[in-house]
Amino acid sequence: MSVSLPLAGAVDLQLGKRLAEQGDASRGLTPCSECHGANGGGSEEVGAPRLAAMGEAYLARQIDNYKDGNRRHPIMQPWADALTADEVQAVAAYYASLPPASNAIVPNDIDPKPGKWLALYGDWAGRRLPACIQCHGPLGVGVGEYFPALAGQPYNYLVGQLAAWTTGSRKGDPLGMMSAMNRHLSAKESRSVAAFYASIPEKKAVQVAAEIERGALQPDPAKATPPTDELGQMATKGSAHTGPLAHQGEIPSGRPQAEAELFEPPLRGTAPDDDFGELVKLGEAIYQHTYSHPVSGKYVGNTQVCEGCHLDAGRLAGAAPMWAAWVSYPAYRGKNKKVNSMTERLQGCFKYSMNAQASKVGAPPSAESRTIHALLSYMYWMATGAPTGDKTMPGRGFPKIAETKQGFDPARGKRVYAEKCAICHGDAGEGAWAEGEGGEKELVFPPLWGPQSYNWGAGMHKINTAAMFIKANMPLGNFIELSDQDAWDVAAYINSHERPQDPRFNGDLAETTQRFHKSQFDYYGKRTGPDGKLLGEAAPMPTASAK
Amino acid sequence: MSVSLPLAGAVDLQLGKRLAEQGDASRGLTPCSECHGANGGGSEEVGAPRLAAMGEAYLARQIDNYKDGNRRHPIMQPWADALTADEVQAVAAYYASLPPASNAIVPNDIDPKPGKWLALYGDWAGRRLPACIQCHGPLGVGVGEYFPALAGQPYNYLVGQLAAWTTGSRKGDPLGMMSAMNRHLSAKESRSVAAFYASIPEKKAVQVAAEIERGALQPDPAKATPPTDELGQMATKGSAHTGPLAHQGEIPSGRPQAEAELFEPPLRGTAPDDDFGELVKLGEAIYQHTYSHPVSGKYVGNTQVCEGCHLDAGRLAGAAPMWAAWVSYPAYRGKNKKVNSMTERLQGCFKYSMNAQASKVGAPPSAESRTIHALLSYMYWMATGAPTGDKTMPGRGFPKIAETKQGFDPARGKRVYAEKCAICHGDAGEGAWAEGEGGEKELVFPPLWGPQSYNWGAGMHKINTAAMFIKANMPLGNFIELSDQDAWDVAAYINSHERPQDPRFNGDLAETTQRFHKSQFDYYGKRTGPDGKLLGEAAPMPTASAK
Repeated sequence: MSVSLPLAGAVDLQLGKRLAEQGDASRGLTPCSECHGANGGGSEEVGAPRLAAMGEAYLARQIDNYKDGNRRHPIMQPWADALTADEVQAVAAYYASLPPASNAIVPNDIDPKPGKWLALYGDWAGRRLPACIQCHGPLGVGVGEYFPALAGQPYNYLVGQLAAWTTGSRKGDPLGMMSAMNRHLSAKESRSVAAFYASIPEKKAVQVAAEIERGALQPDPAKATPPTDELGQMATKGSAHTGPLAHQGEIPSGRPQAEAELFEPPLRGTAPDDDFGELVKLGEAIYQHTYSHPVSGKYVGNTQVCEGCHLDAGRLAGAAPMWAAWVSYPAYRGKNKKVNSMTERLQGCFKYSMNAQASKVGAPPSAESRTIHALLSYMYWMATGAPTGDKTMPGRGFPKIAETKQGFDPARGKRVYAEKCAICHGDAGEGAWAEGEGGEKELVFPPLWGPQSYNWGAGMHKINTAAMFIKANMPLGNFIELSDQDAWDVAAYINSHERPQDPRFNGDLAETTQRFHKSQFDYYGKRTGPDGKLLGEAAPMPTASAK
Repeated sequence: MSVSLPLAGAVDLQLGKRLAEQGDASRGLTPCSECHGANGGGSEEVGAPRLAAMGEAYLARQIDNYKDGNRRHPIMQPWADALTADEVQAVAAYYASLPPASNAIVPNDIDPKPGKWLALYGDWAGRRLPACIQCHGPLGVGVGEYFPALAGQPYNYLVGQLAAWTTGSRKGDPLGMMSAMNRHLSAKESRSVAAFYASIPEKKAVQVAAEIERGALQPDPAKATPPTDELGQMATKGSAHTGPLAHQGEIPSGRPQAEAELFEPPLRGTAPDDDFGELVKLGEAIYQHTYSHPVSGKYVGNTQVCEGCHLDAGRLAGAAPMWAAWVSYPAYRGKNKKVNSMTERLQGCFKYSMNAQASKVGAPPSAESRTIHALLSYMYWMATGAPTGDKTMPGRGFPKIAETKQGFDPARGKRVYAEKCAICHGDAGEGAWAEGEGGEKELVFPPLWGPQSYNWGAGMHKINTAAMFIKANMPLGNFIELSDQDAWDVAAYINSHERPQDPRFNGDLAETTQRFHKSQFDYYGKRTGPDGKLLGEAAPMPTASAK
């Protein structure tokens, strides 16, 4: 899905600068700066976006969108039509090279709080609406080629674009995801989201993003009610499924439909303001930033986060929610043939899904660690009111998926992946990151195979488990529905790649396969990978600090 | 409360043997053996008890009871009247010296299962009825001077005595406890209890007792319904308080009265028959035999058991039940100024109440230990259905007790203790044991002070905590009610004795007192003990393996 761009070095930045600042009178092209500002920070007056420090590929794609008619604008459309491909690249590269700037003016009559809530948390339970930050990165600093920065965009531009997605006058978003998402939002909410993002100074976005990554930017308890009455009503009315899902057809069959019957964990941000609440908040931050969080990162040997599989920070029904897990332990697990306490269960996540063996510590967090205590407290708090021992809570685990007549096939799955998954998870399953402060990367979409993914012992390496998860939860927000067959096939494709070694590997692939990987839904030690070796054969044994 | 008996060595066993086997024709005394059997095993035909291997003091006391009119029997009364004090001692000592023997015949038309249930578990929630074994020792092998062996007693004798307690024709039990307890039992249940105890061969009682001590003798799942319809109905009807408590006056004000509203943990013995259930059963066994259990004993530095404070194996409302505790953690504790997981909370019990520092291991069980896993599983299972996070469950913790005008006074408490506590806990707070297999002791009543008791850091050393516990729960089964004043005073008396050192002691009594013992309800470092030293001053620092 990626477009091939000339390397930045080969682009004529001077050409871009000239077009931006002077236009080309011979072709009737006004300078970009006339609408987008001399600093590239956009304009409230004409509703023009900021371009400065936006992604080069994203900017070039937008000019192409005007050429293609996916976007409409009386000035931009003829402008785009006039440019050559080289000029498009030059202008895009020029603006991408500018320092961050924003000419946004925050309207003082719009309450940004509901928008902030939706931006940070979304509204999963009510509308299956992912948070904006889940694709646009921490506080909207932008991710990859497809997800532009939102921080510091002029309010009027954002309001206009949100409306354009809804009416269909703007197109060109991969798989129609923005138009689908946006149909979930009321006009009032759109204004609030726009006001929130306009309020974030672009030059501070990275810093603010870093703050939220560290769990410092927590919502006020005062904001911890559903952001607006309107939002609350929509959620109550179950309008979630009158939008894109109804539009696309069925609600994904895999996930719970009777949301009214689902357990409701406490609202986000309502943890008490005391020592226990502090630990709950830490647990939530760890849940979302497991590998990069200063408290938990040293136990993580890849770049995964708990939230990667347990969506909405462990709250989402059908994505193995933590409130249902909490009341299910201690419990016997066939995996290690004993009764596991919740602490042991969590340590298992680190051992397999987080590949702790390759972490700085080289092992999962101890029962005494702050990481375990924070996660236990967070889970316990999320389960407030859940009946102890109830293993039948609707939404528990991943919903079952029926086997299909055709079985599963990685070759078919490869096509599904390229069409519907690669946009976020990358062509090579490498995941996607947003830039963080100091240039380090912050995970946005988790890697699905390779050294930074879950290892061969993780539950997700099993094709049936992955198929269940994918069917019920992918793509994020279910703005399109995968067929059962697609879910099986793409799960098979993902899990036909090499990944970190099973920590139970004893040096003998056949024996390890026999002991732990006999399932028909498991390619370890059976299927040959792209390098001609059996899967598991080329998987490196993790060593501490290899991260 | 103990009677002073001549030492066994000074007793004329030959005289006892002669009276037992030949009687004394000159005084019209028939030989004991005529009714009690040549082997002293009793008789079903005449309903005579077994005497062989019964406690000497108990036997002598019974002859005195016939003299005093506390017991009535056409043969025994004149017989007892005729004997001199020396002869009473001689006969008692002779039978105590005989090897165990039983002539009991188990009736084949009486179902012993309900009786077994009541003997092992009692019916706390329904009727506040302690298990028989809680005073009579493991499987009824007898404890001290007041609690005779029941195992191997003829069925007809037991039925007769249970009826005699109820009608009042038998008296002389300390504080009237047997008549109080027995009023809880229906006639049908009395027959079943009698059949159960008659069915235990006396010569195997110790061995069977040892089995139950090891958790091997678990009730069948099939028996895990309330033992009889009658019992179930009585419990449902709330007949608990129409018996002795109504007779004695008020239901103790300290404990929850609206039992219908109380949470009901799963019935005993209904843990599933799988690995999880095995761990639950192990947890229950540890709960009841903490210091002597092979799994948990190495972490216990005194002779305490969890059940000593958390009655009915942690199930009883008002005695800090485990189902209410489970849903309350993780939680912040002022005691260690941090959020504690349940594992840490349990480790705290071992550190203080169990004085783990003086145990073989010298420390509480680790989070990875089988002891912790078993206790977590047991607690979790008991909390089945309890709402996670609910800290308002009726019956949680110990009920509050109001302060009294007179305050608390150990001198007054000493009298209360001598009258109402020493029977079970001993004159010197030393507790009581039943003989176990191989002659080792099995705890029946826990020590309340001294080296085998809880240490100066345990919650129970606080006078208000102890007063709450005592008011609501003592004497076992609340067959009499202590006034608030008595509860405060006896709590002060108990906690005015020296006990193992607070593990937080830093070598400086004044400083340790200032840091951890400032409460007005705490005598540590303030009150002078009997040896003229401040309490805490003579408390030995625990050292591992001092046990």
